[in-house]
Amino acid sequence: MSMINAYSPGADISPEDRALIARREAVLGPAYRLFYERPVHVVRGEGVWLYGPGGEAYLDVYNNVACVGHSHPRVVEAIARQAATLNTHTRYLTDLVVDYAERLAAILPPELGRLMFTCTGSEANDLALRIARARTGGTGVIVTANAYHGVTAAIAELSPSLGPANPLGDHVRVVPVVGFAAAVRAALADMQASGIRPAALLVDTIFSSDGVFDDVPDFGEAVAAVRAAGGIFIADEVQAGFSRTGVAWGFQRHGLSPDLVTMGKPMGNGHPVAGVAARPEVVEAFGREVRYFNTFGGNPVSCAAGLAVLDVIRDEGLEANAREVGAYLRERLAPFGGVRGAGLFVGLQLESADEATRVVQALRERRVLISATGPRGDALKIRPPLVFSRANADQFIEALSAVV
Amino acid sequence: MSMINAYSPGADISPEDRALIARREAVLGPAYRLFYERPVHVVRGEGVWLYGPGGEAYLDVYNNVACVGHSHPRVVEAIARQAATLNTHTRYLTDLVVDYAERLAAILPPELGRLMFTCTGSEANDLALRIARARTGGTGVIVTANAYHGVTAAIAELSPSLGPANPLGDHVRVVPVVGFAAAVRAALADMQASGIRPAALLVDTIFSSDGVFDDVPDFGEAVAAVRAAGGIFIADEVQAGFSRTGVAWGFQRHGLSPDLVTMGKPMGNGHPVAGVAARPEVVEAFGREVRYFNTFGGNPVSCAAGLAVLDVIRDEGLEANAREVGAYLRERLAPFGGVRGAGLFVGLQLESADEATRVVQALRERRVLISATGPRGDALKIRPPLVFSRANADQFIEALSAVV
Repeated sequence: MSMINAYSPGADISPEDRALIARREAVLGPAYRLFYERPVHVVRGEGVWLYGPGGEAYLDVYNNVACVGHSHPRVVEAIARQAATLNTHTRYLTDLVVDYAERLAAILPPELGRLMFTCTGSEANDLALRIARARTGGTGVIVTANAYHGVTAAIAELSPSLGPANPLGDHVRVVPVVGFAAAVRAALADMQASGIRPAALLVDTIFSSDGVFDDVPDFGEAVAAVRAAGGIFIADEVQAGFSRTGVAWGFQRHGLSPDLVTMGKPMGNGHPVAGVAARPEVVEAFGREVRYFNTFGGNPVSCAAGLAVLDVIRDEGLEANAREVGAYLRERLAPFGGVRGAGLFVGLQLESADEATRVVQALRERRVLISATGPRGDALKIRPPLVFSRANADQFIEALSAVV
Repeated sequence: MSMINAYSPGADISPEDRALIARREAVLGPAYRLFYERPVHVVRGEGVWLYGPGGEAYLDVYNNVACVGHSHPRVVEAIARQAATLNTHTRYLTDLVVDYAERLAAILPPELGRLMFTCTGSEANDLALRIARARTGGTGVIVTANAYHGVTAAIAELSPSLGPANPLGDHVRVVPVVGFAAAVRAALADMQASGIRPAALLVDTIFSSDGVFDDVPDFGEAVAAVRAAGGIFIADEVQAGFSRTGVAWGFQRHGLSPDLVTMGKPMGNGHPVAGVAARPEVVEAFGREVRYFNTFGGNPVSCAAGLAVLDVIRDEGLEANAREVGAYLRERLAPFGGVRGAGLFVGLQLESADEATRVVQALRERRVLISATGPRGDALKIRPPLVFSRANADQFIEALSAVV
């Protein structure tokens, strides 16, 4: 969530872009930010490429939302066809929400067989929090030290990476990634001392905003401690899910079986669709007593987009591609710094935030898009569409070599 | 939000629909509900019509989301074209988010010139709450007695219509629609006595879940009292906005100028797009200190859908249609009960919830879709797509006559 590479009003920008920025600043709320000192104006996307108004091509090494590639024709066709046919809510009987839920259930562990749909990852985490409260009767939540889980009021309170202007709730405890299980046990003890009943451990299973960590050997021990204290484990797969790390779900790499799984960003390749997968017994009390209706959630167009994304991941072998190109990319990155991550979610540890900022800006000038992450903003965040090829990796490494 | 007309497992349902319901219940979370004792299975939509698997046509007198008619070809074409071109987030410079924000600003009062985009009305109200807190330093919120504002954890706490399993926050006060200003003043006094600083009065300007009220003469007085106490006024236009009541915005009918306006359901004719319009000074502190980024919010496809909806409302004269057909419909409804509402948002007061339930079910058997509303569920909620014609109104009245 760090915006180290934000727009600088003094930068050398074309008159057209400057005019568009002025219009934007006049009409959008002041909370909006632009990436890069010289913002990137994009008008078209295809595969791993984004294109500017003059046709200039940017290599996209950053956007995990367009997971099967920008404007993938099969996803576009599915959206167009379904939008022309039917788009309505789940209180009528419709086919696609059932088809899509069954497809998701088929790639999830069998115990996580109940799906609910929302429109954004924030909504998915917010819903998971509500389910966790109804299940446990508790309120306490443990998150990692620089976690990001979303922007609703309840989830911003659980997202330390949003900074001091988004204060954490009194019911929230933060833990480091290193020494994870011991810190979780200490957080549980502290909750008990404060009279707070634990509801959940909520973790992004690739620890993206903490700087990208693939190997957390005591993760399972931490989950066991939370369950022993009456809480549940929510795997936030908004970043790591959908084959990004070379397996279907990030939690699988840690050998874990969550109580709830939240998902979002890549699900519709940019179409707003997200959701929660639950163990039946975990969602039972919430479903019976509380109810939940999301007007747009699970509509047939969103489900058609989601189904098309799953089809493309399967038919184009993108999970294997994430493993293979990811391994190649990490190997080629090793000379540049400490490499972490799995599949096509890679963190490259540099010396300082200043260096990371300089590299991100210099790559932008070479029309290569990445960003930085971590509590100090000193790691590069490398997270291209899953169709990223070995040749794309070579091109990225070449650009990186030129700027480091 | 009442689900008085929910699916009854014993009902006479086709084997195919029964099989689909069984699959649905096996894979969706138990929080999902179906309308009607005999659920309506829909596979296609066009204009004011929804169609079942056998081609049977249902007259849609209920769905405000498909505001320009189901699967309107101009909206479908805009979505398909833009999805094939570019779909990315607002941290790059893109044209459509600026174009769309300017179009919205042009139909809003000039003081509400700053737009922010989310994907759902729940997210819009959640964001408005966060802005209100940052602006006022307060936490207290006043809502109507049977209000519904959304399903995030923070907004469910402000939505008494969700029932006792969704307890209201300690910082929330509820007021009746009748005797509004006096009740708001009493709520403010009670907050002061409890040491709660007011943040906002949050009101759906057609009072939909309270039973549909078009005439609340002391609304302005209530808003003035909240502002005098340091709070702001948030107009929830998720239901009343986008010409539904025969004017652009529901608050205009009450002669009010809100501090924040939230919008959602009809914006994209079913595509998940929603937003907040703000006075610059109201959103300034939030924008500077807190920031906000919604991954899918304001993406080019959502904005293309939103622009197409505004084009169709203008080109097909749907605001005037809402006024004219709405007036005709209300006139023809008068013999059946107490008529409330404006434009094509109409409440028909019946004797009891039992009667309302019976009418809703009987109309469904005649393939006419409506629902019920109000704290006792004893008012019919009549809210068709804005392309509803006088002939459609006649057809609806004919069906209603046959079942009452």
